[in-house]
Amino acid sequence: MAPLLTPALQDTRQQLEALLEAHNLNAVRALLKTEHPADVADLLELLDADQQAAVFDLLESDMAAEVLDEINTRSTRGLVDAVSDEKIADLLEAMPVDDAAEILAELDEDRAEDILALMEPEEAADVGALLAYPEDTAGRLMSTKVVRLKAEWTVEETLRYLRTIDPEVETLAYLYIVNGSEQLVGVVPLRDLVLAPPDRRLAEIMNPSAISVRVDTDQEEVARLVAQYDFFAVPVVDAGGRLVGVITHDDVVDILQDEFTEDIQRLGGSEPLEDEYLSTPVLSVTRKRIGWLLVLFLTEMLTGTVMRFFEHELEAAVALSFFVPLLIGTGGNSGSQATSTIIRAIAVGEVKLKDTWRLLWHEMRTGFLLGVLMGAVGFVRALTWGSSIALSLTVSASLFTIVLWANVIGSLLPPLAARLKIDPAVISGPVMSTLVDATGLFIYFMLARLIIGV
Amino acid sequence: MAPLLTPALQDTRQQLEALLEAHNLNAVRALLKTEHPADVADLLELLDADQQAAVFDLLESDMAAEVLDEINTRSTRGLVDAVSDEKIADLLEAMPVDDAAEILAELDEDRAEDILALMEPEEAADVGALLAYPEDTAGRLMSTKVVRLKAEWTVEETLRYLRTIDPEVETLAYLYIVNGSEQLVGVVPLRDLVLAPPDRRLAEIMNPSAISVRVDTDQEEVARLVAQYDFFAVPVVDAGGRLVGVITHDDVVDILQDEFTEDIQRLGGSEPLEDEYLSTPVLSVTRKRIGWLLVLFLTEMLTGTVMRFFEHELEAAVALSFFVPLLIGTGGNSGSQATSTIIRAIAVGEVKLKDTWRLLWHEMRTGFLLGVLMGAVGFVRALTWGSSIALSLTVSASLFTIVLWANVIGSLLPPLAARLKIDPAVISGPVMSTLVDATGLFIYFMLARLIIGV
Repeated sequence: MAPLLTPALQDTRQQLEALLEAHNLNAVRALLKTEHPADVADLLELLDADQQAAVFDLLESDMAAEVLDEINTRSTRGLVDAVSDEKIADLLEAMPVDDAAEILAELDEDRAEDILALMEPEEAADVGALLAYPEDTAGRLMSTKVVRLKAEWTVEETLRYLRTIDPEVETLAYLYIVNGSEQLVGVVPLRDLVLAPPDRRLAEIMNPSAISVRVDTDQEEVARLVAQYDFFAVPVVDAGGRLVGVITHDDVVDILQDEFTEDIQRLGGSEPLEDEYLSTPVLSVTRKRIGWLLVLFLTEMLTGTVMRFFEHELEAAVALSFFVPLLIGTGGNSGSQATSTIIRAIAVGEVKLKDTWRLLWHEMRTGFLLGVLMGAVGFVRALTWGSSIALSLTVSASLFTIVLWANVIGSLLPPLAARLKIDPAVISGPVMSTLVDATGLFIYFMLARLIIGV
Repeated sequence: MAPLLTPALQDTRQQLEALLEAHNLNAVRALLKTEHPADVADLLELLDADQQAAVFDLLESDMAAEVLDEINTRSTRGLVDAVSDEKIADLLEAMPVDDAAEILAELDEDRAEDILALMEPEEAADVGALLAYPEDTAGRLMSTKVVRLKAEWTVEETLRYLRTIDPEVETLAYLYIVNGSEQLVGVVPLRDLVLAPPDRRLAEIMNPSAISVRVDTDQEEVARLVAQYDFFAVPVVDAGGRLVGVITHDDVVDILQDEFTEDIQRLGGSEPLEDEYLSTPVLSVTRKRIGWLLVLFLTEMLTGTVMRFFEHELEAAVALSFFVPLLIGTGGNSGSQATSTIIRAIAVGEVKLKDTWRLLWHEMRTGFLLGVLMGAVGFVRALTWGSSIALSLTVSASLFTIVLWANVIGSLLPPLAARLKIDPAVISGPVMSTLVDATGLFIYFMLARLIIGV
């Protein structure tokens, strides 16, 4: 999913820039009025901070609230700094409670408290209640505006009741039924309600085993449930089973995106950042990266041990060293290819732990083919580079063996991690390369002894 | 998202295995009856092929259809092979049209045609129509069972009409309004319909600028729209603007997952597979990987050129070569850390192209800090390894420079790719390591000349 704007939006962007250049603010207001808030947010992100604040000031309050909700964290902070606390408080009141809480969580604590104090007491209490839950839990993500129905109501009564409710209720996709103690006892999809005869009671059409999450459930667990059962909203209950909120479709897509971002950062050999990249201070980025970098550095020192062990060979034929980066590089690359595919296959459930041997067999055959191809290419290349036949043979045989070996290691490590209850994504490309480097060198020098006889 | 079963499901699994062991098939039937089809699919995936077929045979047809829809491709093929064409045809008829098409697309063409011939002519025509669209387009993903409403209807008329429709209609989340030529003219969320006064006409409450995709729109584009606008269903129109279907929430989550899978495979330095991993023949896996492996191999040969260029230094001090894998490994690792983070930040739109210089500045500072730390660690390690002070200094200065350099390259390449309209995900860990290897070596040997004076 590329970050590029659609052609239509590119046009709007050019018009916007021209109008800003000409300081024609009325025309800017008219131009943006008809755009989707998500698109306006994208356009704002392309402007510099002063322009962002000026354009944001032109937006009507509904649009401004939605844009503030859609725009990236860095721009949120910029806009909030450029706009008065009163105005921000008004905008947050116009937003779903969970989104307002999310924005406040992105600000400095002092600023957030000042703004919270300026909001209507009721709204402020709702937002404050969400902020009291730990980050990354269901409680933090949920909307507390949820419709509570009674099992004894008929379909017609329910439809009549729904017409009277707070229009701020965030989702009606699923309707939740509670008992006298506010405990969740069932769920009816709105669709079923609409399709059911008007005199039917909810008790007859509801599903009494509604799957729910608890306020303290981790958001990763929420995402797993949603993906597993194809939900687009999940009810949230407290420790006593009372319905306290609902997590809606848009939040679920956001969680999926967040989880995926973490996976990608892990695969790159870094601990996941907690915030958007450019909003994360350099010191925090460094802290997230140095751990793995050091671990890999210490492991990689094994390569030095192997090279020293074969010091005699290296002194006798310095040309041997010319191929070292090439060989370990190719091993690391083909190991990374294997692990990244397998890690993902495990994550989406395509591959189970019981498939470990099947994985190994698949990768051994793939590694064999890749090894033969790379070995052949390597032999020709070493010869045309003026290496001796013996050296060329050594390079070729090493390429074959190292590629095969890297695929074997690459297929075994992710299931091993899963078995040890470690996220397989920690078997990143860097981890893979590092492990293959020292063993690959050992293979190379042993083959050199055998073939060249140095 | 780990592939592990929940504790409750682990229990069920153990019970299932015990019952199968005891050949108590009636108890197996009773056990699975109350489970969610998605969970039953997960449990089946853990069994061997014979057991899968035996258990599948016990399921009631509604459950069997849903399990067939949820289970992974490899198991689908196994089950379809073990069950008669007639039964499969019946199951496919019980499924949403788009899911039936998806399953047929996973089978051999001959088998799929045999099964299609056994289905009810009307159902078969619907499924066949979807299969006629190219893979990965909106046409292939959509459900053709969609409700078409008229703008002049009142809310009450519409609610009455909805009670009479085909219960197989897949989604009612959004209701689509068409004109006399079947062209899409507006959309009303079911929620708005329910909340509106009964005598209001749809024309008054509908949104006349419904965003739609065309049957030939690529699924990636569909996913982008959905993520951008927080949709959970998108109408599909033909070239004449006529409403032909709808893509629903569950398909959208599937597309997002597919796109993630492709990105991860690219980041691992492989072309994305078109199918599930274990269902992809070894030859196809090899073909997807060999391209990049060769390109990287040829690029990596630059390292040999650099090493030869410094042959004199290497002969004079063979100890120099001991640090080669360590230095280029560390460079590749820190470059991968930078690119993976930045690629993802670009993909989710956190970072725009205009942020390129800001990115560079962020990574230069991070690289500086990481470089200082790694340089210090490297100096101590080289000394304690018995290297001379001059060599230790060389290693330390090289680590600093290479890490800084890798972060600079790592921050510039993804935006460069985006600017050239190449998916930034092709700047994989392997690409990064390969580029840093040769330049890193050059830095190392130049510093060795300068500091050691070999």
